[in-house]
Amino acid sequence: MLERLKEEVLAANLDLVKHGLVIHTWGNCSGIDREQGLVVIKPSGVPYSEMRAEDMVVTDMDGEIVEGSKKPSSDLGTHLLLYTAFENVGGVVHTHSEYATAWSQAARPIPPFGTTHADYFYGAIPVTEELSTFEIKGDYVHNTGLAITRRFRTLDPDAIPGVLVAGHAPFAWGTDAHDAVHNAVVLEAVAKMAWVTLQINPNAKQVSQSLLDRHYFRKHGENATYGQ
Amino acid sequence: MLERLKEEVLAANLDLVKHGLVIHTWGNCSGIDREQGLVVIKPSGVPYSEMRAEDMVVTDMDGEIVEGSKKPSSDLGTHLLLYTAFENVGGVVHTHSEYATAWSQAARPIPPFGTTHADYFYGAIPVTEELSTFEIKGDYVHNTGLAITRRFRTLDPDAIPGVLVAGHAPFAWGTDAHDAVHNAVVLEAVAKMAWVTLQINPNAKQVSQSLLDRHYFRKHGENATYGQ
Amino acid sequence: MLERLKEEVLAANLDLVKHGLVIHTWGNCSGIDREQGLVVIKPSGVPYSEMRAEDMVVTDMDGEIVEGSKKPSSDLGTHLLLYTAFENVGGVVHTHSEYATAWSQAARPIPPFGTTHADYFYGAIPVTEELSTFEIKGDYVHNTGLAITRRFRTLDPDAIPGVLVAGHAPFAWGTDAHDAVHNAVVLEAVAKMAWVTLQINPNAKQVSQSLLDRHYFRKHGENATYGQ
Amino acid sequence: MLERLKEEVLAANLDLVKHGLVIHTWGNCSGIDREQGLVVIKPSGVPYSEMRAEDMVVTDMDGEIVEGSKKPSSDLGTHLLLYTAFENVGGVVHTHSEYATAWSQAARPIPPFGTTHADYFYGAIPVTEELSTFEIKGDYVHNTGLAITRRFRTLDPDAIPGVLVAGHAPFAWGTDAHDAVHNAVVLEAVAKMAWVTLQINPNAKQVSQSLLDRHYFRKHGENATYGQ
Repeated sequence: MLERLKEEVLAANLDLVKHGLVIHTWGNCSGIDREQGLVVIKPSGVPYSEMRAEDMVVTDMDGEIVEGSKKPSSDLGTHLLLYTAFENVGGVVHTHSEYATAWSQAARPIPPFGTTHADYFYGAIPVTEELSTFEIKGDYVHNTGLAITRRFRTLDPDAIPGVLVAGHAPFAWGTDAHDAVHNAVVLEAVAKMAWVTLQINPNAKQVSQSLLDRHYFRKHGENATYGQ
Repeated sequence: MLERLKEEVLAANLDLVKHGLVIHTWGNCSGIDREQGLVVIKPSGVPYSEMRAEDMVVTDMDGEIVEGSKKPSSDLGTHLLLYTAFENVGGVVHTHSEYATAWSQAARPIPPFGTTHADYFYGAIPVTEELSTFEIKGDYVHNTGLAITRRFRTLDPDAIPGVLVAGHAPFAWGTDAHDAVHNAVVLEAVAKMAWVTLQINPNAKQVSQSLLDRHYFRKHGENATYGQ
Repeated sequence: MLERLKEEVLAANLDLVKHGLVIHTWGNCSGIDREQGLVVIKPSGVPYSEMRAEDMVVTDMDGEIVEGSKKPSSDLGTHLLLYTAFENVGGVVHTHSEYATAWSQAARPIPPFGTTHADYFYGAIPVTEELSTFEIKGDYVHNTGLAITRRFRTLDPDAIPGVLVAGHAPFAWGTDAHDAVHNAVVLEAVAKMAWVTLQINPNAKQVSQSLLDRHYFRKHGENATYGQ
Repeated sequence: MLERLKEEVLAANLDLVKHGLVIHTWGNCSGIDREQGLVVIKPSGVPYSEMRAEDMVVTDMDGEIVEGSKKPSSDLGTHLLLYTAFENVGGVVHTHSEYATAWSQAARPIPPFGTTHADYFYGAIPVTEELSTFEIKGDYVHNTGLAITRRFRTLDPDAIPGVLVAGHAPFAWGTDAHDAVHNAVVLEAVAKMAWVTLQINPNAKQVSQSLLDRHYFRKHGENATYGQ
């Protein structure tokens, strides 16, 4: 079942490695079939070099395995919550990519310092609150998702397709698994450039609202014209 | 038409990828045929891996497509303005290369801290003024070019073949597309080294005028002797 | 003798190069056969490109060569001491990997700023005391091992499989040679991210004890469930 | 003539590229035949990908071309002076490698923060004085060499096989061309790690004299035992 989605999710996971976003087996990507309400996610602990489409795990929205002989990624619970809360999301990525993780550990949102950022993220890339001991000791993976969705109560996940989990690492999402990887790559590049920007000029200014509008809306919405 | 220039422009665009200056499809390069008044530029949104010479777009100096089935790069308007204002320029490059972009976001000119810089740029690499809301809401791409040419009113584009657009990213140029890429690569290296230089010594001194002269004129002008 | 262990140790040494942890011939990895009380270690001064399993050197716990025509790595004495002091350790790695070495040179422990760290190291990665002139002039390599074991008097080497030797570089260990390399790769990644974290936020907070517990124990001990 | 030395010098120049120390055609390496008093150096302006042994240029100690159809590297004058002043040197390398160049631009010596440094450089890696306008306007390349040898009046070039030219970039040397490249690679690694060390701990301590002695003399002199 869902053979095409499995191929997509496999390819997206391998792309994470190709783009240098993962070390060892850290990082995972999933995709959703909204009609059937099924998620396809990377298996747990399988080396990337040996991973095949049939190793992908199919689960329902409660995390019950529908097909697959492997265990699903241990971050499945967070993915499921994001799919549930963010209705236009078709793919979710989690990595420990170096610079985005550093911002997560620093517990600082990434300010929109330039058009690279503005082309993809319509405002700062937010950081969640630190999880409480209660949340950590409870259903930790699910609660990580809750910390994200709580942070997005007043934000639009379609306009800001990524988040930093405080003391942890980034999640990114998109219209499908491939697009989620694309955004995860951008998030990492933006994270690195924002760090260097602040090193050069600790008082660097965020771009203006009009520049945010210009760049975001040339790529998104009805009047999109983009393509460098 | 302009088959040779198309090959050159294609090769230059692929070189941007090879030198690690672009992520995804960010970045673009063009070349001009001054006699015919025609510009050849990278198409919009075509993956580098599939790009062929016949995909290059030929436009006149008003941006009207003369040949080509694809849309031209969305930054065409800036390229055209640079060709119009800088009469010796034969090729233009725009990238979001990491370190030069960080300086652009920091809105700080890159000081000439050493001979690497001085061999290519005869003084600091300037940064434009921030675009006004009016300029952003108007013909943004064209106005980006105007911000650059305004910055060069008192500068020589032949002696300083690159610029940082504030809150955006660098443009570089040269005698042809290949030379523009060469300068874009140097700009990125110089940007990285200047950042580290300041980290090591926040009071680092710029090179003296005599060193600027020595290095610049051994590579440029009548008495050039250079070649390491 | 110990042909299988030699193959393992060779593969682990080559993995150090593949992961970018070594320059020239810096770095070395060993493995132990606890039953026979024999250690297999990289030979000294043999280029990685020419290294074969039969070049690995077998020594007893006193460092006497039991088999092998090459000299053992000059750091053998430190490896032997770690095997003697840390009874569950099956493999030891020493590198001069850039970021972990920088922390060693800075003589600062690496604080646990995030879950990447917490998944592998149950607390800060400690740094030894500086060796005294007496220790340096004496049996330096052995004394380096003593400085490490002294630092671990109140620490559990199974929960913190790595250390920074002040003014020198890191050692890491694991259940076997392969696992030691795995931990050395993580140590380097954690060292880089911790540096960037502090650059972004000099007051970055360490993760809470409950997060340390959560991440560490999902990978270690009876209730381990991990595998991304 | 000197076919073997030409092969060595070619290989050493290509190694500079392989180790990531050069961009474009920046950087050059030479070797000397002390008996014949002849130097073999990289030609000027030939792309690395097309360089062949017969392109290497042979000159005498005054810089007169003895064999070769190409122009010698424009830095020849500095190489010649180093061979004249430092009698045990068999190979010289000049690069604009990123981190060593940043230290040169910062005009700061690289302190010996750890054993990686101490294994190769017996003390800080020195930086020359800035060249005067008079020196720059005169025989600049030769005067660059003089600035280096002046800096080494009280230093031993055999114990410290490299230098930072202020506002310019590093030179390194060794017993032959290959060894000079080896030391240039170490200098770059040491430069990067020293920068990060200072970022982590601005008050990082230099290693003790006894550690400098221990590491330097285990690799150099009569009692050398080294080989990791």
